[in-house]
Amino acid sequence: MSATFTPLHRLEAWQAVPLLARRELSAVDLVRACLDRIAEREAQVQAFVQLGADAALATALELEAGPVRGLLHGLPFGVKDLFDTFDLPTAYGSPIYAGRQPPADAAAVALCREAGAVLLGKTVTTELANMFPGATRNPHHLAHTPGGSSSGSAAAVADGMLPLSLGTQTAGSLIRPAAFCGVVGYKPTHNRVPKAGVKSLSETLDTVGGFARSVRDVALLGAVLTGDARLADPANFEQAAAPRIGLCRTFEWAQAGDDTQQAWAQAEKALADHATPLTLPVPWRGLVRVQKEVQAFETARSLSHERLRYRELLSAPLQALITDGLAISGETHARNLRATASARQQAQALFDQHDVLLAPSTLGEAPRGLDSTGDPLFCRSWTLLGLPCVHLPFARGRYGLPVGLQLVGAPGDDHRLLAAAHWVHQRLRS
Amino acid sequence: MSATFTPLHRLEAWQAVPLLARRELSAVDLVRACLDRIAEREAQVQAFVQLGADAALATALELEAGPVRGLLHGLPFGVKDLFDTFDLPTAYGSPIYAGRQPPADAAAVALCREAGAVLLGKTVTTELANMFPGATRNPHHLAHTPGGSSSGSAAAVADGMLPLSLGTQTAGSLIRPAAFCGVVGYKPTHNRVPKAGVKSLSETLDTVGGFARSVRDVALLGAVLTGDARLADPANFEQAAAPRIGLCRTFEWAQAGDDTQQAWAQAEKALADHATPLTLPVPWRGLVRVQKEVQAFETARSLSHERLRYRELLSAPLQALITDGLAISGETHARNLRATASARQQAQALFDQHDVLLAPSTLGEAPRGLDSTGDPLFCRSWTLLGLPCVHLPFARGRYGLPVGLQLVGAPGDDHRLLAAAHWVHQRLRS
Repeated sequence: MSATFTPLHRLEAWQAVPLLARRELSAVDLVRACLDRIAEREAQVQAFVQLGADAALATALELEAGPVRGLLHGLPFGVKDLFDTFDLPTAYGSPIYAGRQPPADAAAVALCREAGAVLLGKTVTTELANMFPGATRNPHHLAHTPGGSSSGSAAAVADGMLPLSLGTQTAGSLIRPAAFCGVVGYKPTHNRVPKAGVKSLSETLDTVGGFARSVRDVALLGAVLTGDARLADPANFEQAAAPRIGLCRTFEWAQAGDDTQQAWAQAEKALADHATPLTLPVPWRGLVRVQKEVQAFETARSLSHERLRYRELLSAPLQALITDGLAISGETHARNLRATASARQQAQALFDQHDVLLAPSTLGEAPRGLDSTGDPLFCRSWTLLGLPCVHLPFARGRYGLPVGLQLVGAPGDDHRLLAAAHWVHQRLRS
Repeated sequence: MSATFTPLHRLEAWQAVPLLARRELSAVDLVRACLDRIAEREAQVQAFVQLGADAALATALELEAGPVRGLLHGLPFGVKDLFDTFDLPTAYGSPIYAGRQPPADAAAVALCREAGAVLLGKTVTTELANMFPGATRNPHHLAHTPGGSSSGSAAAVADGMLPLSLGTQTAGSLIRPAAFCGVVGYKPTHNRVPKAGVKSLSETLDTVGGFARSVRDVALLGAVLTGDARLADPANFEQAAAPRIGLCRTFEWAQAGDDTQQAWAQAEKALADHATPLTLPVPWRGLVRVQKEVQAFETARSLSHERLRYRELLSAPLQALITDGLAISGETHARNLRATASARQQAQALFDQHDVLLAPSTLGEAPRGLDSTGDPLFCRSWTLLGLPCVHLPFARGRYGLPVGLQLVGAPGDDHRLLAAAHWVHQRLRS
């Protein structure tokens, strides 16, 4: 696919970057193309809570005139409304924080701007990055959920409104919306990306990541967020050897629907020469429960101000999660954290025989209806383990919505995971 | 020491709590006693950036009239100005944030208020919890540093202005000021206490904890912050058996000054029947360097907004730390995080033969001068390892300032560490 025949707003970031750097593509034109696409589609998709069009055009103009700033020079990006931005309000998807204007950028936002990215707007998050949905719809079918909690960031990238966006994951909030919207979602190794200025829910689980339309694009973003230049090294992709893939259906496989089972069968066939089955340690059967309890316990305590002073402004599902969390004893939580630490130790051994693991991302395609953002079941354990994950879209479900699978990497080996994901994605799409 | 003969403002929290609960002590009187002490001494000590006297008295009055709220019912507390408070400004010790009023309490603050504690004021932090000092002086000798970065919280408790206060540690910011001011400092296991609403510097290192004048007092605070009731269980202290103590001079022992060496000799003698030497794993020799690099790398990135937009408002030492951090490659950082994870795994084995480790807290007593808050050398490795630590004051240095040592516990075993610390502290002070 040559850049020449792709509409500007659909250009992949890694294709746009050299054109922008050589001034063969105008940063202002690229911002305009994205704004035009937003103007055309936003009434349907509702990906944004706030646009910063004038500031974005001014920044793009400045970037055109100045030196190349960094890896994201001239690329428009969107930011989940869970990240502070000094020039746009940040309300965390909650009426408690309506109109709140933070004094500073979240670290991840500042790092993207430093690398030359142009903030186009704040994207819809579910309420406080939990289960209660925002307004966003699935751009592939407006009656279906885009997933959550990073709903707007995934939908905007899927719909060609933006090449890149930021999100977070505590259970399945990056991988699930990436899967439902049919984009590449990247959850880095836990704590490789600074969380300063992002509303904190769970120290153990919260992870900053992002969305794009190709693995090479999330790798660009990942290099900026982690500060690890290896992630975006072109050689990492161009010379990538076939990875040794562990086929990891997980203990929750029985709950995978037809869409996911068919995508799995298709992938197994396409990757047969490079993949062998992998069995998880038996005690990991309990990790989904541990993740749920850790999330509830830590969220209930992180949101102490909100539950004590604004309980009536919290949705019923979030109130229920908080009630569950407060019912878990500190002793149980200490035991859960011990189980987490022990599982994180064991995780390293999964990668003795394999470079990456292939695993389900979701139960199936995006469910119909906007009352729920779907089930993060297949993401919970990987988030608890803190392992880097990349969602790869490559199939379609029964109703024509996107379906895919995730690749899981060894802790801290994000650059190898991304190279493998690029290789695998090419195979799956060919 | 009977409560009757202790001035109100010097009462230990665990002694005050039952009196407050039985209405034998008035919460208003206790707040007034602390405010009187502050009025008498604040011009010298300069522990506070902001007092909330009226609101504190109103809250105390309310608590007197209502039911017992929780473990800290009626106890005044102070909060390092790195934690957000909805009713007092929070400026992180930086001119960048002068006058900033957050919309919500940090989670740790809200948890203390929920348990009945009365916020008396915000205490001085060094600039952005780094090395550039605030105004606070050592209450034992005004020409000496109180330590940092939790300077005001440690000094206020030492001077009898408050029974309890909150702080954070990224290198040695709880244990060092506790040692210099002669109070008990408690750094919980990493990520046992929510960090929501606390200015984030380093995901890997930042830890919320607190100060008090006895182990039983920090245990009360710890139970509220962690949600683990075992920490404050009276039986935990009253029935505490003698712990098996590992004597751990650490690889940095050669840098301990006379004060610390004498305190060590005194402790070794007092604890001889229960203590045996412990040798750390040889690769841990490098942990101080790893901690420094992790702190510099993560701080430089967490403070991206500040370094990009307000560089001229950052102190020279903080600018230098940021420059150091930006010079560390993402690949080196990934290696450092791997070394950290591996050392955290090994740490468990230290506690096969010992319940707790005794280790130095500081080079010696608080240095003369207010230009530096002293060296966190002896805290760096324990912070990197994420292990719970309690500083115990029990000796005096050459110039009559407080000296002590820290006890280090197994990861997640905060309740056992606190019980052992209570036992050891009684021995050391008798």
